[in-house]
Amino acid sequence: MSPFRVVGVIGKRREPNLDLLRDLCDGLRRLGCEVLIEANGAFGRDAPAPTVARDELARRCELVIVVGGDGTLLDAGRDLAPAQVPLLGVNQGRLGFMTDVAPESMHEHLAAIVHGQYESEDRLLLSASVERNGRRDGATRLAVNDVVIRNQATIRMIEFETWLDHEFISNHRADGVIVASPTGSTAYALSGGGPLLHPSLSAIALVPICPHTLSDRPIVVDGQRPIRIVIRGVDRAQAMVTFDGQTSETLEPGDVVEVRRAEKALRLIHPPGYSYFRILRDKLRWGSGPAAQERV
Amino acid sequence: MSPFRVVGVIGKRREPNLDLLRDLCDGLRRLGCEVLIEANGAFGRDAPAPTVARDELARRCELVIVVGGDGTLLDAGRDLAPAQVPLLGVNQGRLGFMTDVAPESMHEHLAAIVHGQYESEDRLLLSASVERNGRRDGATRLAVNDVVIRNQATIRMIEFETWLDHEFISNHRADGVIVASPTGSTAYALSGGGPLLHPSLSAIALVPICPHTLSDRPIVVDGQRPIRIVIRGVDRAQAMVTFDGQTSETLEPGDVVEVRRAEKALRLIHPPGYSYFRILRDKLRWGSGPAAQERV
Amino acid sequence: MSPFRVVGVIGKRREPNLDLLRDLCDGLRRLGCEVLIEANGAFGRDAPAPTVARDELARRCELVIVVGGDGTLLDAGRDLAPAQVPLLGVNQGRLGFMTDVAPESMHEHLAAIVHGQYESEDRLLLSASVERNGRRDGATRLAVNDVVIRNQATIRMIEFETWLDHEFISNHRADGVIVASPTGSTAYALSGGGPLLHPSLSAIALVPICPHTLSDRPIVVDGQRPIRIVIRGVDRAQAMVTFDGQTSETLEPGDVVEVRRAEKALRLIHPPGYSYFRILRDKLRWGSGPAAQERV
Amino acid sequence: MSPFRVVGVIGKRREPNLDLLRDLCDGLRRLGCEVLIEANGAFGRDAPAPTVARDELARRCELVIVVGGDGTLLDAGRDLAPAQVPLLGVNQGRLGFMTDVAPESMHEHLAAIVHGQYESEDRLLLSASVERNGRRDGATRLAVNDVVIRNQATIRMIEFETWLDHEFISNHRADGVIVASPTGSTAYALSGGGPLLHPSLSAIALVPICPHTLSDRPIVVDGQRPIRIVIRGVDRAQAMVTFDGQTSETLEPGDVVEVRRAEKALRLIHPPGYSYFRILRDKLRWGSGPAAQERV
Repeated sequence: MSPFRVVGVIGKRREPNLDLLRDLCDGLRRLGCEVLIEANGAFGRDAPAPTVARDELARRCELVIVVGGDGTLLDAGRDLAPAQVPLLGVNQGRLGFMTDVAPESMHEHLAAIVHGQYESEDRLLLSASVERNGRRDGATRLAVNDVVIRNQATIRMIEFETWLDHEFISNHRADGVIVASPTGSTAYALSGGGPLLHPSLSAIALVPICPHTLSDRPIVVDGQRPIRIVIRGVDRAQAMVTFDGQTSETLEPGDVVEVRRAEKALRLIHPPGYSYFRILRDKLRWGSGPAAQERV
Repeated sequence: MSPFRVVGVIGKRREPNLDLLRDLCDGLRRLGCEVLIEANGAFGRDAPAPTVARDELARRCELVIVVGGDGTLLDAGRDLAPAQVPLLGVNQGRLGFMTDVAPESMHEHLAAIVHGQYESEDRLLLSASVERNGRRDGATRLAVNDVVIRNQATIRMIEFETWLDHEFISNHRADGVIVASPTGSTAYALSGGGPLLHPSLSAIALVPICPHTLSDRPIVVDGQRPIRIVIRGVDRAQAMVTFDGQTSETLEPGDVVEVRRAEKALRLIHPPGYSYFRILRDKLRWGSGPAAQERV
Repeated sequence: MSPFRVVGVIGKRREPNLDLLRDLCDGLRRLGCEVLIEANGAFGRDAPAPTVARDELARRCELVIVVGGDGTLLDAGRDLAPAQVPLLGVNQGRLGFMTDVAPESMHEHLAAIVHGQYESEDRLLLSASVERNGRRDGATRLAVNDVVIRNQATIRMIEFETWLDHEFISNHRADGVIVASPTGSTAYALSGGGPLLHPSLSAIALVPICPHTLSDRPIVVDGQRPIRIVIRGVDRAQAMVTFDGQTSETLEPGDVVEVRRAEKALRLIHPPGYSYFRILRDKLRWGSGPAAQERV
Repeated sequence: MSPFRVVGVIGKRREPNLDLLRDLCDGLRRLGCEVLIEANGAFGRDAPAPTVARDELARRCELVIVVGGDGTLLDAGRDLAPAQVPLLGVNQGRLGFMTDVAPESMHEHLAAIVHGQYESEDRLLLSASVERNGRRDGATRLAVNDVVIRNQATIRMIEFETWLDHEFISNHRADGVIVASPTGSTAYALSGGGPLLHPSLSAIALVPICPHTLSDRPIVVDGQRPIRIVIRGVDRAQAMVTFDGQTSETLEPGDVVEVRRAEKALRLIHPPGYSYFRILRDKLRWGSGPAAQERV
């Protein structure tokens, strides 16, 4: 793998761990990297490296290291994936599903990684747009995990149609639906009863949330074809669409949310020996519980 | 069973079926009953029987017939159960779980029922109160189906503790929790993955909605002991509590929602030969699908 | 609570922990108890207390301490509950759902318990019988956890009817059905998608195993009424009935398995301060995982 | 699409519908096709077309029409897919997931289909082998729906490891595991809680059956990489492997079952206008129930 020379750093927006960020920047410089860091009010006069805006990080860096939790990485991922900058996640708390480098082993791993010893993994990214009154409003929104359509002010069900390209799937009455990438299959979709999707799959899961019809089950479709969700009558229940659980917009009856695989993937960098299933085993406590009573 | 002489009628608040109501009132009078009907703007000058307010219906009637859907009956049930007036549900559309008399067979069943031939079934009713800053605000709310605590403006998880009387159950992070009576076990709780509870059980189900912890499973507890849900940090997600999906209030961190079995039950009247499971078989299409592919 | 003077001990049938059993018997004698132990070939000439058969333990003891896992306690429970002897479980491995005393704290707890300081909890026990060709074969089988009806030699579905007393519930096509007590709701039934039932409930859960009809959901019924399962055509799939996962019998088409609440409960003794939910929190790892990715 | 000139017919092995088969063969001949039919004892002296063995059908036919249920088609699919003969399913009872032509509309559809107007769909086929004592026994087994590993004589859990090629997934304790193709995702896997997989996906689902660990959830992996299931201790519970629910073999501890995408797919022929989701909507009764109580 190619080595990295210009490395960016992104900390948590709120309460970044300044000691850890400083330690990381110092280590990268000792390894011969040029280091840039995203500007953050918490730095005061004393930033651990030259500060730049996120879009400049995207333009100039060959690798960006995100220090925080999975949420910090989701947020950075949506912004940096279009520029094709690979991301490495360092967790400042408990290991995450994606921020899989612990601070204790950070320096050891960095030495290998900046010299080209690492594993690279492309994660399918979702691209969504909203069409109202037959016109697509301009912006395309990206999501690393999921695009969620749900009722908001009440628990009344919303009604919507699902389509796979021009093929009608079904009508639904439910609290909503989670459209999840493989990466998002370990997030909200898992809580909603969806399956785990291996990241190498080019597939998207549709997971209904508390559906009225008991046979309205999660369905996995090919990532190549666009998914359309048409909002029908929502009675007194207003619907909203949320991207990675982080940004939301209100929907109206007739709105069409189209979700498709984004052209560009999110590239994650992992230390050598990375195993997706080891993270799952750890996070989901496979093997060690939680377990039903023994059947003896 | 004792016959009914003074019979009240409640129609749907919006778009009542005037012909059906008139037909019902006429039929009851022919059977020798005194008939009162809840006032409704849709009647104009021409109500099918003397109109009174709901509280007067509660005081004067020996039986109240609700014409509408399950939602109409839930609403009437919360108001009339405290007065111990039994309810009979006539469905004006497709048969409901509780409005189990069809208009076609209405007259035949009424003749039997008002003369004392019927089955009577008591349904556990939930009584809830909200405590803020250590003080219980005055009112007690009733629910026939469920008391639901859920996030509202966003899909961020809310955090809450559950207690069975003074015994701590667990901490939860989830979209919310459904506290369901046996009657409510066929409603929202069923969509959320909860079990069916036979109406003769004095039990209450706690069904977490999209819980973060995968082993956070539905739990059924004795209806005799109060359940307490303590709202903890909700971050930017505001929590709300909803009664029977019909009335809501906003909650704040620290609020305690206490749910217990109401002192009085809701008495439902059914035609002779009523079978709870027959309704389930019909509504859930047991036997005839929806079914997976045959295993041959 | 009343103190215990004559105390019985039951170890695991295979590979009992002799040191632990000796230590337990010595401790009980120091506390002034008369100690009897179930005979076990592993003792050789050197049993830690006078050995007797299990039925004599049942007749003579005021308390029986079971040393092993939950399976050892299930087995002892079925045999001793009819004699109304309370049981205390000491786990020789990891803490169980019912064997909730650890060897390390055994002596401390025993001192309190034999002097009358303990909590006593009655667990509903299942009583089952099988009727063939209209005749009930003699024996009644007990189960602490569950009575399971399942296909055996193949994965073809079996067909059966369920009845609550004389009320028909439904026809089913499935791998089988788990009829679980509240105690068994944390065992096989939990793996099959059933709810947790608090032990104070007089209720029984019917949990279909891999049902063909997707709306065939777990149902909880009152423990007072007998449940009947009628085996219908099983094609080439032979059905069997299993009690607590430990003893099995083959079933034939037309056989009727009747399950009801046993007259006598299983009395469990716990150290003071026992909390059912604390055990659940520990075993199911509530609070600490296994958790989906954070929704940030 | 290319027209079909030599058409084979396969009926149900037991109780074939002779009238329907005769009608079908006559119709095909009127359309100018040469017709061959699989030999069947039920024909007596009077077969509706020249009878041949199944392997000759595979060699000589350009299309084979299977008359029966989904099970008949599964059985024919395993035998004919290696020869790359496309199959068309005519249901002799209720419409199936795959036998999607009704007898009533058979002739109308056949006219179009044999002249080249049809839709063709390739379904991923599973190829499995069993390795014992480090040696693969000779035969490769095919499965259209699923390869299922399950306990047989008892309900004791079996233990097994899952691997994705050389990557370890996890240890499991469960009744078993269903390895399902997208076609099989509507069969046993659906009853076991698995997701629906669209047939265009090159993916395989692993669905644990009643797993001991509650976080042991269905996982979908890429069809390109072999899945290995290593049988570990099975205590007194014997494990077996079953192909499409139709043929079984007993497994021993240490056995390795390897499942991979077969080189050749099963080609299904559908009448013009075929919609996968329409079949799902019909079979799973999406839209019309079975539904929970209305949330009003």
